[in-house]
Amino acid sequence: METTPWTIDRYEGEEADRKSDIVAVEYPLTIFINGNEFATMVCTPIDLEVLVTGFLASEGLIRKADEIKKLTIDMDRGIAYAETHRPIAVSGEGQKRWIGSCCGKSRAFYFKNDAATARTAVDDTAYTPDTCFRMMDAFHREAETFRETGGVHQAAIAKDGKLVKAYTDIGRHNALDKLYGYLLMERMEHRGLAVLFSGRISSEVLLKVSKMRIGFLLSKSAPTDLALQLAEDLHITAVGFVRGRRMNVYTHPSRIKESSKGGVSVE
Amino acid sequence: METTPWTIDRYEGEEADRKSDIVAVEYPLTIFINGNEFATMVCTPIDLEVLVTGFLASEGLIRKADEIKKLTIDMDRGIAYAETHRPIAVSGEGQKRWIGSCCGKSRAFYFKNDAATARTAVDDTAYTPDTCFRMMDAFHREAETFRETGGVHQAAIAKDGKLVKAYTDIGRHNALDKLYGYLLMERMEHRGLAVLFSGRISSEVLLKVSKMRIGFLLSKSAPTDLALQLAEDLHITAVGFVRGRRMNVYTHPSRIKESSKGGVSVE
Repeated sequence: METTPWTIDRYEGEEADRKSDIVAVEYPLTIFINGNEFATMVCTPIDLEVLVTGFLASEGLIRKADEIKKLTIDMDRGIAYAETHRPIAVSGEGQKRWIGSCCGKSRAFYFKNDAATARTAVDDTAYTPDTCFRMMDAFHREAETFRETGGVHQAAIAKDGKLVKAYTDIGRHNALDKLYGYLLMERMEHRGLAVLFSGRISSEVLLKVSKMRIGFLLSKSAPTDLALQLAEDLHITAVGFVRGRRMNVYTHPSRIKESSKGGVSVE
Repeated sequence: METTPWTIDRYEGEEADRKSDIVAVEYPLTIFINGNEFATMVCTPIDLEVLVTGFLASEGLIRKADEIKKLTIDMDRGIAYAETHRPIAVSGEGQKRWIGSCCGKSRAFYFKNDAATARTAVDDTAYTPDTCFRMMDAFHREAETFRETGGVHQAAIAKDGKLVKAYTDIGRHNALDKLYGYLLMERMEHRGLAVLFSGRISSEVLLKVSKMRIGFLLSKSAPTDLALQLAEDLHITAVGFVRGRRMNVYTHPSRIKESSKGGVSVE
């Protein structure tokens, strides 16, 4: 339940092995309270009863567990139905869950807004493994000044294999939003761009990369299965665990090319 | 701007040095669009123009930077005013920012809901440094089975220095909500409890610990300044960078006691 298998290309230097790996499951769960849709979260799909109970308490809707009369979890549909003894006013706060599958877009969307703004990547710029390692090295050097306090995230844009701009933020999504704002303010053409990121590749991270219309994402961390489903559907190459001269290519490995076959190569 | 000084007790084994450290700044920023409050985020307060521009694009409200007619950032008040050329319908989505200072509660709250549900910790159970190190060791051993995929968070409850229950989730807040749900479902008395956490101590993490009415938080990661202000005000002992036999005590060091002076000591 917490993990699922995924086939990857594991690179050591320029050599790749196709092998089976496991990735963390990211599961959208929508909570209904007394029949009204309250919130959608993504989570690891274990211990969902304590999760829903704790979430409702965190949100200030209940104070004790026995205020919940009944809690039913529909694992197939990803919905938790909570019934409380006394009525609870659920505001219209938050986006409504969207289960979309008819328009050819990824079934992995859980918010309609994302389905509307995400873009399939059309840029087929390919990179040599060596260029990937070098981009990530440059990214880590750039990030060093921010590392003194620990716990901040970095995101950067590279163009044709060279670092262009890096941002830092305590919020992983903010670091990516800063990149997005930069691209828009500079009116950058999205061709040849790659996103470098310090954190985990979650569905939200992947969606932000897609909204930027960028097809290549390098991270030093792990991806989730939901992010990889989105990456498959949105034609984004997701590369994780880029550390030293190793990396795992999870989706669309066609954007990784040997130097002799013409991928972007940076001296 | 990104960091601020903070006085800590740095422990190596049982020995403490009081010294000046630096922590990451966490800054609440509220965005108004054409005069209407849209959203409040916490962020690192640099590059706020690109952040707001990218955030609005991520949310699907704009597609190009020049759709923004004017963007004014009021750093003192933590408010960004965006004006767009065409009208944008801003839904009532999300909580309204709350600037509270009159009722003796922390000025660090940015949502009213949190100010209403956070609790000042009244449990004065103290721990020896050795017990802190042992709790964290037990936590890491427990967490190992989940570590295979990378990128998941762990949170655990300890009682009187011994690990009681651990949860894992890809979402940091979910891991803590699972703990909270467990406490409520088990009707656990909050006295003598400590929270152990794998991730950064952000304001949201600190608020969740406070809602659980727990006064002692151990993390292997770094805190933010906003979390520490809340910890000060809510009487929570925040301990970060617990690694091996080292740790940093950021707030309320009175809960750390030498063994000879009667802190909780676990053999």
